[in-house]
Amino acid sequence: MLIREISLAECLRFLTGTRLARLACAHENQPYIVPVYLAYHRPLRGEACLYGFTTPGQKIAWMRSNPLVCVEVEEVTAYDRWVSVIASGRYEELPDVAGRNGERLLAHEILQAQAIWWEPASSVYASRIQPDAPEPFIPVFYKIRIDHITGHEATQDPREVISDSVAAPPAGRLGRLGRALSRVFGG
Amino acid sequence: MLIREISLAECLRFLTGTRLARLACAHENQPYIVPVYLAYHRPLRGEACLYGFTTPGQKIAWMRSNPLVCVEVEEVTAYDRWVSVIASGRYEELPDVAGRNGERLLAHEILQAQAIWWEPASSVYASRIQPDAPEPFIPVFYKIRIDHITGHEATQDPREVISDSVAAPPAGRLGRLGRALSRVFGG
Repeated sequence: MLIREISLAECLRFLTGTRLARLACAHENQPYIVPVYLAYHRPLRGEACLYGFTTPGQKIAWMRSNPLVCVEVEEVTAYDRWVSVIASGRYEELPDVAGRNGERLLAHEILQAQAIWWEPASSVYASRIQPDAPEPFIPVFYKIRIDHITGHEATQDPREVISDSVAAPPAGRLGRLGRALSRVFGG
Repeated sequence: MLIREISLAECLRFLTGTRLARLACAHENQPYIVPVYLAYHRPLRGEACLYGFTTPGQKIAWMRSNPLVCVEVEEVTAYDRWVSVIASGRYEELPDVAGRNGERLLAHEILQAQAIWWEPASSVYASRIQPDAPEPFIPVFYKIRIDHITGHEATQDPREVISDSVAAPPAGRLGRLGRALSRVFGG
């Protein structure tokens, strides 16, 4: 396969269409990953951010203590056709307090417009809630300011003999990497 | 959707069939995520580990400095049908030195048997290498000892009115969570 680094504009365009992402936070140098739903938004004036919604839990406690985070999104069409974008940034909570409600409402609008459908924390809440007697609901809205972003795109290399499916090639058809490994190990 | 925590045995069984994972490491409390190919292996005697292969780069430098890592794997069939497993563990390199080659060879065998087909770092190498004049090749084999693992499975809740496709439900059909958000915001 052929791999190229994609431009900043391409990275941001890719984020626009993304819903499912993985968010990593760290506490005392122990990283932790969770799959989350994030919505990308870039206002006409202002910086590009990712907006999310969750309920309190370990990751919120960790991000309140250490706001440095990393977000990864990917789209795998086949083993040799994929896009992967990695963004480093800072977690910022959007609390329900006077003077900050504007951005909290914006986050709500963006998330609702793009439809929330992932994340265990939110979903547990969603499955527990009763239409007539809702349990106490403490939503946490947050945004991630993107400090640094990189992306890569893989496309098919016509020189390679490859499978055209998402499945990995069977053993024995590993191509150049497999042959290289065999050379290294004499296999 | 209905969400349940899955057992340790279910988590490990899920890892057995997994190839694509996300690996997070951290340096000075800045987390970093990369999509990687990992192969799970549990010997008859000994601990269960994930084995990986890559070329030197930022994540290897970071994991050499701080071996604490987190691995996330998921399988999303639909927005209300998915499995997600999160494992915390420690990175351990399998260097090409006397006395350690046994496990390095084991890693090679496991990875080759299950077919390597992902990871930008390895793939960049794979696309660069020439069959007749290979460039210098410095493979890094590693394993991740699993210290802690949790998993969740979502299944369809027959009480919910939901879409049956992978796509998110359109705005206006957000179900209970959307209605709850609207109650919170008065929308």
